[in-house]
Amino acid sequence: MAKYCIGIDVGGTTVKCGIFTTEGELVEKWSVNTRVSEGGSFILPDTAESVKARLWDLKIDQADVVGAGLGVPGPVDADGVVPVAVNLHWGRKDVAGEFRELTGLPSAVGNDANVAALGEMWRGGGEGSKNVVMVTLGTGVGGGIVIDGKMVSGSHGAGGEIGHINVNPDETVKCNCGNAGCLEQYTSATGIVRLANEELAASEDASVLRNDEVSSKSVWDAYKAGDVVAARVVEKFAAYLGRALAAIAATVDPEVFIIGGGVSNAGDPLIDAVSKVYRAYAFSSCKDIPIVLAKIGNDAGIYGAAKLALDAANA
Amino acid sequence: MAKYCIGIDVGGTTVKCGIFTTEGELVEKWSVNTRVSEGGSFILPDTAESVKARLWDLKIDQADVVGAGLGVPGPVDADGVVPVAVNLHWGRKDVAGEFRELTGLPSAVGNDANVAALGEMWRGGGEGSKNVVMVTLGTGVGGGIVIDGKMVSGSHGAGGEIGHINVNPDETVKCNCGNAGCLEQYTSATGIVRLANEELAASEDASVLRNDEVSSKSVWDAYKAGDVVAARVVEKFAAYLGRALAAIAATVDPEVFIIGGGVSNAGDPLIDAVSKVYRAYAFSSCKDIPIVLAKIGNDAGIYGAAKLALDAANA
Repeated sequence: MAKYCIGIDVGGTTVKCGIFTTEGELVEKWSVNTRVSEGGSFILPDTAESVKARLWDLKIDQADVVGAGLGVPGPVDADGVVPVAVNLHWGRKDVAGEFRELTGLPSAVGNDANVAALGEMWRGGGEGSKNVVMVTLGTGVGGGIVIDGKMVSGSHGAGGEIGHINVNPDETVKCNCGNAGCLEQYTSATGIVRLANEELAASEDASVLRNDEVSSKSVWDAYKAGDVVAARVVEKFAAYLGRALAAIAATVDPEVFIIGGGVSNAGDPLIDAVSKVYRAYAFSSCKDIPIVLAKIGNDAGIYGAAKLALDAANA
Repeated sequence: MAKYCIGIDVGGTTVKCGIFTTEGELVEKWSVNTRVSEGGSFILPDTAESVKARLWDLKIDQADVVGAGLGVPGPVDADGVVPVAVNLHWGRKDVAGEFRELTGLPSAVGNDANVAALGEMWRGGGEGSKNVVMVTLGTGVGGGIVIDGKMVSGSHGAGGEIGHINVNPDETVKCNCGNAGCLEQYTSATGIVRLANEELAASEDASVLRNDEVSSKSVWDAYKAGDVVAARVVEKFAAYLGRALAAIAATVDPEVFIIGGGVSNAGDPLIDAVSKVYRAYAFSSCKDIPIVLAKIGNDAGIYGAAKLALDAANA
C-alpha cells in the first residue's frame, strides 16, 4: 500500500512543496522559485523536477506515492483545468493532466484558498471536523469551504469567495473585483488600514496611530493597549466580519470557522471581537459554532494539497 | 432491478405521498391527513399503511421498490433522526428507522426545505443541474442547498436557513427566530405586507393598496399595474433578496437559483426585480447565474423525497 502523498502550493513568488505520510505527517518541505516568464510555462516542469529529485533522495519509490495535489491561485474547473491564473501568467492550463504527465503521479488540483481550508480541516484548526469554513485575512480576503470533507469549488470557481460578500450597500469606493462594499474592503490588512485612516480623519481623539504610518499590526497593537480610535476600527472590522460569518452559517452551517492569514496574527482579541458580533446575528442553532485561529499557517496549502491527492486516490 | 421509489412530504396538515419510477416519472400521488394527537405517534403508521395499501392496489411488489424518502418540517441529523418537529408534535424520533420497520422499505429522511430543493433539481426548475439553491418565499422564508447532487443539511440542521440571514442590522422588530433583521422579515408573504403597511404610513401617495387589507398578492398586482407605493415595496423586497442571493453566490456558487413558495406566484416581474439587484451585487463570475421560478410547486417535496430514497439506494 502506498505510504506517501505530495502537497504543492503554487504561489506567485514561490512554489511550496511537501512530502507527507498518508496519515498526514509532514516528512519534508521545501520551496522552489516561481518562474513566471514565458507564460509561466516553467512552473510545473520546475516543480516536477524538484519533487522527483527529492523523492529519489529520500529513497521513496513511485509505487509508494499515492499521488500529488496542487493548490493554485485561480479558479479550477471540475476536470482539474485552470481557465486563468493571473499571478502565474497562465492562460487555460490542464494542471492536473500536465503534472501527471511530468511525474507519472496521479494528480489533483484545487483553488489555493479552498485547498488551505482542506489542510486546516485535516491537520489544523479544524482537525476532526468534516465541515469547515476558513477565512484568510491577508492583503485580500479569501475563503474556503469544506462540506462533508470535500471542497466547495462552486459552479464558476467562486465557491468560498467570501471576501466578495457585500456587507455595505452604501459604499462608493470600488473593490478590486469591480463591485463596492465587499467584505475584503474592510477586513483585509489593506481594509483595516483604510478604516483606521478614516477614523483618524473623523475625530481629533488622541491615538498612538497618529504617530506613524498605520498598518494592520499597529491597529491591533493599539487596540490591545486600549487606544480609543483603534477600538472603533476593531468594532467596525468585527461588525462586518461577524455578520458575514453569520450569513455563511445560515447557508452552510459548518462545525467550525477558522480564521487565518496575516491579520489573524492579532490572535485571541480578534477572535473575541468577531465572536461577539457573530453570536448576536447567528441563527439560533448556529450560535455556538466555534471561531478559531488557523493552526498551520503557511503550511495549510501543502497539507490541503496532500489531502486532495489522498482523497482523489480514495474516491 | 427495482423500478419504483416512494416520496413522502410530511406536513402539519397533510402528508403528501407519491409513487415514482426511478426515472422520476410520477405514477400516482395522494394525501393522508396528519394526525398530530398523542405526540404525532400516528403519523408514520398512518402513512405506512396508506403507502403499502396503494402499492398493493397498483400490483407493485416489494422487490420492485428501491426505498422510501421522507421530508419533514424540522432539522434532521446525519443518522436520519429528527431531534424535534414542533408542527408534528414530535420530540426526538428515528424517522428513517421507524418507517423502515413499518414498511420493510429502506428509508431516508431529510429536512423538507432541503428535500424540496432536491426535487426542483431533479425534475423542476433546476433540472440538469447538480448545484442549486432554492428559496421558498411563503409565510416564512425557507431554503435548500444542493451541492454536487447532495443536500447541505448543515452541522446543526441549519443548512439553507437563508431566511435567517441578517439583511438589516438596524432592525428593531424581532423575527420569530429571536434575532432581528432576518431576510424572512422582509421577503416572506408576511414581510411584504409589513413593508407595504410601512410604505403606506410613510406617505400620502395615492395607492390601490389603501382600498383594502393588504396581502402579498395585492402588492404584486398593484406593482404590475404601476402603483407607486407598491413599486417602493418591491424595490425594498428585491434589494433584500437580491443582496442575500449575491452573498449566497459568493459562498456556494450554484448553477441556478430557484424561487418558490406562494410569493413566487408573482412570476416574472418578481424574478426581474430580484435579478437586477442580484447582478449589481454578485461577484463577477457569478453575475450570470440564472434566477428562475420553481416548476413543480407543491410537488417538489414528494419528488425530492423520492430522489433522496433513490440516492440512498445508490450510495
